[in-house]
Amino acid sequence: MNYPVELKRHWLAHVMAQAVQENFPEVKIATGPYTDDGFYYDFDFASEEISDKDFKKIEKSMKKIVSQNQNFVMFEVSYEEAKEILFQMWEEFKIELVERLESGEFKNKEKITGRISFYLNVWKWKSTEKNSATQAFLKEKWFFAFEDMDGDQVKNLKFIDMCTGPHVESTANLDANSFKLARIAWAYWLWNSENIQLTRIYAFAFENKEQLDKHLHMLEEAKKRDHRILGKKLKLFTTSDLVWSWLPLMQPKGMIIRKAIEDYLWDLHKNRWYDRVWTPHLAKEELYQTSWHAGKYLEDMFSVYGWTSKENFFLKPMNCPHHMQIFADNQFSYRDMPIRYFEPATVYRDEKTGQLSGLTRVRSITQDDGHLFCRVSQIQEEVGAIVEIVKEFYKTFGLLEGYWVSLSVRDPETPEKYIGWNDVWEIAEKSLEEAAKAQGLNYREMPGEAAFYGPKLDFMFQDAIGREWQLATIQCDFNQPNRFELSFKNEDNEDEQPVVIHRAISGSLERFMGIMIEHFAGTFPLWLAPEQVRLVPVAENFADYAFDVKKKLEAQWVRVTVDASTDSLNKKVRNAEQMHVNYILVVGEEEVKNSSVAVRNYKTKEQSVMKIEGFTEMLESEIIEKKL
Amino acid sequence: MNYPVELKRHWLAHVMAQAVQENFPEVKIATGPYTDDGFYYDFDFASEEISDKDFKKIEKSMKKIVSQNQNFVMFEVSYEEAKEILFQMWEEFKIELVERLESGEFKNKEKITGRISFYLNVWKWKSTEKNSATQAFLKEKWFFAFEDMDGDQVKNLKFIDMCTGPHVESTANLDANSFKLARIAWAYWLWNSENIQLTRIYAFAFENKEQLDKHLHMLEEAKKRDHRILGKKLKLFTTSDLVWSWLPLMQPKGMIIRKAIEDYLWDLHKNRWYDRVWTPHLAKEELYQTSWHAGKYLEDMFSVYGWTSKENFFLKPMNCPHHMQIFADNQFSYRDMPIRYFEPATVYRDEKTGQLSGLTRVRSITQDDGHLFCRVSQIQEEVGAIVEIVKEFYKTFGLLEGYWVSLSVRDPETPEKYIGWNDVWEIAEKSLEEAAKAQGLNYREMPGEAAFYGPKLDFMFQDAIGREWQLATIQCDFNQPNRFELSFKNEDNEDEQPVVIHRAISGSLERFMGIMIEHFAGTFPLWLAPEQVRLVPVAENFADYAFDVKKKLEAQWVRVTVDASTDSLNKKVRNAEQMHVNYILVVGEEEVKNSSVAVRNYKTKEQSVMKIEGFTEMLESEIIEKKL
Repeated sequence: MNYPVELKRHWLAHVMAQAVQENFPEVKIATGPYTDDGFYYDFDFASEEISDKDFKKIEKSMKKIVSQNQNFVMFEVSYEEAKEILFQMWEEFKIELVERLESGEFKNKEKITGRISFYLNVWKWKSTEKNSATQAFLKEKWFFAFEDMDGDQVKNLKFIDMCTGPHVESTANLDANSFKLARIAWAYWLWNSENIQLTRIYAFAFENKEQLDKHLHMLEEAKKRDHRILGKKLKLFTTSDLVWSWLPLMQPKGMIIRKAIEDYLWDLHKNRWYDRVWTPHLAKEELYQTSWHAGKYLEDMFSVYGWTSKENFFLKPMNCPHHMQIFADNQFSYRDMPIRYFEPATVYRDEKTGQLSGLTRVRSITQDDGHLFCRVSQIQEEVGAIVEIVKEFYKTFGLLEGYWVSLSVRDPETPEKYIGWNDVWEIAEKSLEEAAKAQGLNYREMPGEAAFYGPKLDFMFQDAIGREWQLATIQCDFNQPNRFELSFKNEDNEDEQPVVIHRAISGSLERFMGIMIEHFAGTFPLWLAPEQVRLVPVAENFADYAFDVKKKLEAQWVRVTVDASTDSLNKKVRNAEQMHVNYILVVGEEEVKNSSVAVRNYKTKEQSVMKIEGFTEMLESEIIEKKL
Repeated sequence: MNYPVELKRHWLAHVMAQAVQENFPEVKIATGPYTDDGFYYDFDFASEEISDKDFKKIEKSMKKIVSQNQNFVMFEVSYEEAKEILFQMWEEFKIELVERLESGEFKNKEKITGRISFYLNVWKWKSTEKNSATQAFLKEKWFFAFEDMDGDQVKNLKFIDMCTGPHVESTANLDANSFKLARIAWAYWLWNSENIQLTRIYAFAFENKEQLDKHLHMLEEAKKRDHRILGKKLKLFTTSDLVWSWLPLMQPKGMIIRKAIEDYLWDLHKNRWYDRVWTPHLAKEELYQTSWHAGKYLEDMFSVYGWTSKENFFLKPMNCPHHMQIFADNQFSYRDMPIRYFEPATVYRDEKTGQLSGLTRVRSITQDDGHLFCRVSQIQEEVGAIVEIVKEFYKTFGLLEGYWVSLSVRDPETPEKYIGWNDVWEIAEKSLEEAAKAQGLNYREMPGEAAFYGPKLDFMFQDAIGREWQLATIQCDFNQPNRFELSFKNEDNEDEQPVVIHRAISGSLERFMGIMIEHFAGTFPLWLAPEQVRLVPVAENFADYAFDVKKKLEAQWVRVTVDASTDSLNKKVRNAEQMHVNYILVVGEEEVKNSSVAVRNYKTKEQSVMKIEGFTEMLESEIIEKKL
């Protein structure tokens, strides 16, 4: 039987725990779930020391366990019995889990059955023993300790772990070559920094060796493309301890890329009759009390205090409440609808995030934000127009391969979680689906993934090395127009409440730029490239010609430099390649004579000699067409 | 003798105080300085009531006093004697001033002589009495109270005020038709809100009636152009109590103007090889401790606190410290200099300001900010390039008439007020002056007007109704590069400290836009106009043609609407005029037949019939040339 990969990852975590206890008998085990690319287990090594030098040893033990075809045997006991068993096993972390389960603390996370299940890794037990009789036997015998058990059984009882399951049948269902220990990290017991710090061992695990190798290769590739390293090397952005490491600053070269993306986004919106607006970066606390953000997002918000005005504010964590104020200052009629506001604006969120990660996890988030105010009947057409923008934008960046869209709708079992009228929800969900269909989107309906305030479309795109990123989003909102009491006059001159559609195409300019640096591995399409052309004279006496060519290219707004240094030709070309300059133009006697340039394409490595005019024309079309 | 207008204003304040005391005998007088367009005096009316209905009466008394040719007589006494005199006069506010003077509180503001001067308004005294003998006589006699004085003298002693002077000789030097009471306001005694609230009477005063009338006319005109009223009527911007009245939000129409100005500014800078950068809107307190702003500007700064990160920040009150961080992340050599950063960025300042004034006094200030890092020897050339931008920019807005520039240099008497080396200051001051000369600027050297950190050029421009505004600025800074320890490698591979030049062209986009709304009285040059064209079909059956024309114009990115309402033609034209639409195109049978449009130019009131193509071409050149 082939089990889902998540289940295999889970059981490899058991196998790893068993292997660690074999090698480090004193170790205490905490918890070990699966992850997106494998699993981890948290241990208390107490006085023993572990490092990644021990990985080989542990992996060897794991392979042996897997090849032994150990069977997994489950039995269930009461809370009291579970604690007794765990007490005998000295597993104090598990005892605490049972106690907390008893106290009802996990009742939102776990299904409460009143029973605790254990899984045994057993070796060479007769298959008949894997039945309820065996379980009864074990349960009964347990309290008389191991020595009361059949000698072989004790010998072959390899590992016991308290676990909610489900389980694979045997380690025969696992692949001894499908996993690899990844790294050691530290984690507080139960995520509480007042608790003991545990040692977490991460591992990769996939269906088979091929998939594992593919993933390891991708990680290797990702490391080379790391936007934090490329960002520094190519001088795209910087951070300063004096400012705060979570608030990156754009260097001129990074700003060329960022502005090109921002301008392109505005072009796409301007063509579809969006209006630009501008709003300040803070607002009085009252705005967020009205919008409800101060209740729901308080911890993520930055408080602001004015010493002269003695007023209290929040930095804006999103733009919508501000945009509602702009709408509210008008007296619109149904003829004016829909109203479309666009603002690339920086919002600030003090989010809990893990390690510092350049541009992809920052506290300053510049959203290419927009809000549409429309009638329920207009949702489908407006969403269609937004989807067009999304498709055009991501096609330009070469990201339309392998994308998919989550059509996030209500969980039919918990209607109480959602605000707004049922019939409006139905129309909105249907409108999103119809728009998705009409645009030929590769979408999946995801029940329960809707926001409490409305259904949405979330777009997932795959980058050049196969990593998936959630980027664009289109969200209906029935909540905020209600809280801000927005309205327009309908055909009967009555007040009608508009639906708000939140939409972001790139999501956040910072994060999108980080992803694009890695997607393009630092070699950007020409229209984005900070340094498009570098002229390299083969000797000093050709520098004048190089500067002449530079002037000609600059007249067409090409971003071009001349390397007039006294370095050797090879060194100069190498330096240009180091900076991923798209076109390196070598000029010497031949080129001066023929008014030409010797062109090296950094990405394709192609070389050719071209007339200056021909080269300029080629650049121009490459830029205008935004060629990849 | 003709005295400076400020002196006349000052003495008209005395005259007003005298007139008020004549009409309200119980009133106590506080202080009364001159202002930019007149003067004011603060009074304590105690139980008496005053309103602008009393202005006529007071003005009449003032005119009488002026026409009486009262002489001003000064005498000086000691602090003790002054208090005795004021005690007899029941002038408690003045007594407090003497006490504070005695305590040394005002020593930074006033020259301490140990003597207090009084001025008497006297009538019909013999001119010989206006000499030191008279003063001695008065001083001696004072203590025996008024009844000891010569009968006529007492009768003709009209008014006494403690005042530092200087003074005009007589009310004969004043013009009875040169002033006009303006309004009543309230002010705390000595600007302290814990003190008593006084009644302040403002008045206008000029050299003569003609100048006064011109000023009153200008105010009348300014009222009509008030950008707060036009901003609301033309839907350019809005404020929200939930956001904060000092943080305006841009409506789509206002944002068209703002973005056009911002894009134009970037064009001017891009042409001169500035680089765009981007920085976040807050930074850790440490940044401003290093830059010294936390010491000098603390009260004007907004504090920020992150609830999750538990970090303390300030919203940025200026961009320079951030830009220093971008510079500092590079290893520049002298070959890279100068470095030019440009960032239109919003800074936040919690400044004490008077009444709410739309866009011109806000807490969100979007500076078209830029910082140059250069060698001392490069100041002149770089300043020259900035001046070119300033001239081009203000010429485009029709503001180059009657401008002047303050060349703000050190006060040679207080060299200790300035930081940095004397020879660097000398070169910098000379460089600014040379650049001003080379650019043919109308400049005046203003000793003592330099910042503590360097000399500067401040540009004053006159708007369409003659009001002067300080707008562009170019400032050398020797302080911040030092505090942030910036350097580049010079020819000898040694660290050299750059000079920083702060420069802003429009100053602040909000304030500049407010001024431009009033300058253009809401009728903007076509390239800025939110609604450039409105099509008005004379009847319903010409609406299709109107929409055809609209499409043709939109293909050229013209901002155009169609009024397809059922209103009368007159009403539709009036509505378009209400919104200051630049071109109103009336279309009917003739126009459909001839593929033409009947064009009304809102500003010139000219009317003409044009072919669509001809009209489009006219618009295009008007926009490209940024015609006024």
